Amino acid sequence: MALGKGRLEAFSDGVIAIIITIMVLELKVPHGESLEDLKPLIPVFLSYLLSFVYVGIYWNNHHHTMQAVRSVNGKILWANLHLLFWLSLIPFVTSWMGENHLTQWPVFFYGIVLIMNGIAYRILALTLIKHHGENSLIAQAFGNDFKGKISVVLYAVAILCTWLNPTISVVIYVMVAGSWFIPDK
Amino acid sequence: MALGKGRLEAFSDGVIAIIITIMVLELKVPHGESLEDLKPLIPVFLSYLLSFVYVGIYWNNHHHTMQAVRSVNGKILWANLHLLFWLSLIPFVTSWMGENHLTQWPVFFYGIVLIMNGIAYRILALTLIKHHGENSLIAQAFGNDFKGKISVVLYAVAILCTWLNPTISVVIYVMVAGSWFIPDK
Amino acid sequence: MALGKGRLEAFSDGVIAIIITIMVLELKVPHGESLEDLKPLIPVFLSYLLSFVYVGIYWNNHHHTMQAVRSVNGKILWANLHLLFWLSLIPFVTSWMGENHLTQWPVFFYGIVLIMNGIAYRILALTLIKHHGENSLIAQAFGNDFKGKISVVLYAVAILCTWLNPTISVVIYVMVAGSWFIPDK
Amino acid sequence: MALGKGRLEAFSDGVIAIIITIMVLELKVPHGESLEDLKPLIPVFLSYLLSFVYVGIYWNNHHHTMQAVRSVNGKILWANLHLLFWLSLIPFVTSWMGENHLTQWPVFFYGIVLIMNGIAYRILALTLIKHHGENSLIAQAFGNDFKGKISVVLYAVAILCTWLNPTISVVIYVMVAGSWFIPDK
Repeated sequence: MALGKGRLEAFSDGVIAIIITIMVLELKVPHGESLEDLKPLIPVFLSYLLSFVYVGIYWNNHHHTMQAVRSVNGKILWANLHLLFWLSLIPFVTSWMGENHLTQWPVFFYGIVLIMNGIAYRILALTLIKHHGENSLIAQAFGNDFKGKISVVLYAVAILCTWLNPTISVVIYVMVAGSWFIPDK
Repeated sequence: MALGKGRLEAFSDGVIAIIITIMVLELKVPHGESLEDLKPLIPVFLSYLLSFVYVGIYWNNHHHTMQAVRSVNGKILWANLHLLFWLSLIPFVTSWMGENHLTQWPVFFYGIVLIMNGIAYRILALTLIKHHGENSLIAQAFGNDFKGKISVVLYAVAILCTWLNPTISVVIYVMVAGSWFIPDK
Repeated sequence: MALGKGRLEAFSDGVIAIIITIMVLELKVPHGESLEDLKPLIPVFLSYLLSFVYVGIYWNNHHHTMQAVRSVNGKILWANLHLLFWLSLIPFVTSWMGENHLTQWPVFFYGIVLIMNGIAYRILALTLIKHHGENSLIAQAFGNDFKGKISVVLYAVAILCTWLNPTISVVIYVMVAGSWFIPDK
Repeated sequence: MALGKGRLEAFSDGVIAIIITIMVLELKVPHGESLEDLKPLIPVFLSYLLSFVYVGIYWNNHHHTMQAVRSVNGKILWANLHLLFWLSLIPFVTSWMGENHLTQWPVFFYGIVLIMNGIAYRILALTLIKHHGENSLIAQAFGNDFKGKISVVLYAVAILCTWLNPTISVVIYVMVAGSWFIPDK
């Protein structure tokens, strides 16, 4: 049964809006009132900023992708929920990384969540293409999805780097996020 | 007075989006930074996963059901709010079960909330069918609702099993959730 | 400048969905796993139930009212935000009353928030009627709004009763909520 | 690629609805039940009220601005996310100011977040005008945006005043908020 795409968009907007907003709750209000009291919040704030950009990228891409979608089916609803599941773990890994600065395991799991999001987005794309056909607008819009694939490879490299130097991993996360800002022609 | 269904869908999307997302707040960020620090979170994470799937199933079914709805009335609004009420208790029982592993009472109340959701969904369906008539698309879409009825029976069995062995109950919950993944022809 | 009503509805749905859902966060997960551990949550649960019904009534009425609205203006946006402000205080007074059972001040402030919501709804209605004209559908839909006026009077009585016996006040709150269930002909 | 504006509106509504509602979570329920127990909450409540009004103003202006928008592009999505980022910091600075009354740094950062929101809104406006053309409805709607510019100047003055007397700064914040209530002809 083919379903309208309106509610999938509305539900995804709702979940992504909540994810992007509840992260800010981890910026615990300091009890003191001096400038010093804000210092421990700087890494938490930077983690928030990075994750805000990542969730923003996913919302942006979701918006662009759904623009080319005509209808959805049950499998697409689940592929989309699968993506939302991994997105929903971003606040958790963001806070863990923010509280422990650049130590191995928090940076490692941040990368795991990023890579699973990348894979979940790819599954969603393939499910959408299968539903619309190989010659559809959506299939053309994705093309070979070079940027998506290279991002997943870079996340994998960053995850491995956590054994060497977690700072390098975070630099890779920031670079991948940055690459998605460059508008596609 | 007949009302458009748009806001009932939008409001339900909002509430379900929040329910599915606030559950992740129970994954409290550990203070340590080692792999060991994540271990106590495993049962909480698995509870979250199970509940995410259940809430996802309800959203999915709600989407399919509402597709066949033409208009709503005051009684339908309340039948829908009644369903949302029981859905809103899922985060509570999820956390309680997640923190206490597989002990009787948390597993018992998880089942109570599941069975009440099943009943609330049935009431919503009957209210919708009454409004649209026995020969309507929505009445045909539900048919005799065998899957819905058998799920409620299985929840009842699982609730009784909590006196014998709560692990069996959880296995039943997982199996019922799994059965809703199998697409209906 | 006349504005479409779509976003006012969507924004109100979002805020009301969040209000109705965050109240459940006050049902703090007990650390123990026995039936006894749930007992202290019973008054919190009952407060949640009452407030869920009240917020549900407001959403319901908002839905019915907006059905008859053709367009909005800046004053209506603010009258609506004013209503959302008082609705947003319901979780706070609900929790305070739930944690302190039926003692004077929590029950008093619960009533204050209810009466302010009633007044804010009346202001919204008058602003809508002024915008659409005395012969408009919206003016007819409200009529003399007997039920709305009597509710505000009953809240005032209940607030005064908190000096005598807060239990009576809560009985009045429950009765007013119940009266809104009875469908208008 | 030109995109519909529907999802940008829906996503912004979702984020702003969450921002305006989670602020109320900072009104921590007192453990006591007397009138005295509410006293420490008064400055928190007043901060909440001020920030509710500010977020309400932004939602209001966003609604008016988007009314004149025909389509959006990738840059506009990011300019809008940039605005939502600064709006999302309002709950943090609100709580910090509310808990520390009128001391310098909380009032200073409250002003920083307000000024960044003002600048982000201006960037969004310029991005929208660039996309629609200098003779478009949206360009005319903004005009020279005198009120927006003067607000940013006043925030800057208020920020500097925190070194002299933070109370003056808060008076300026209240006055600027008040000026946005006066309807434009």
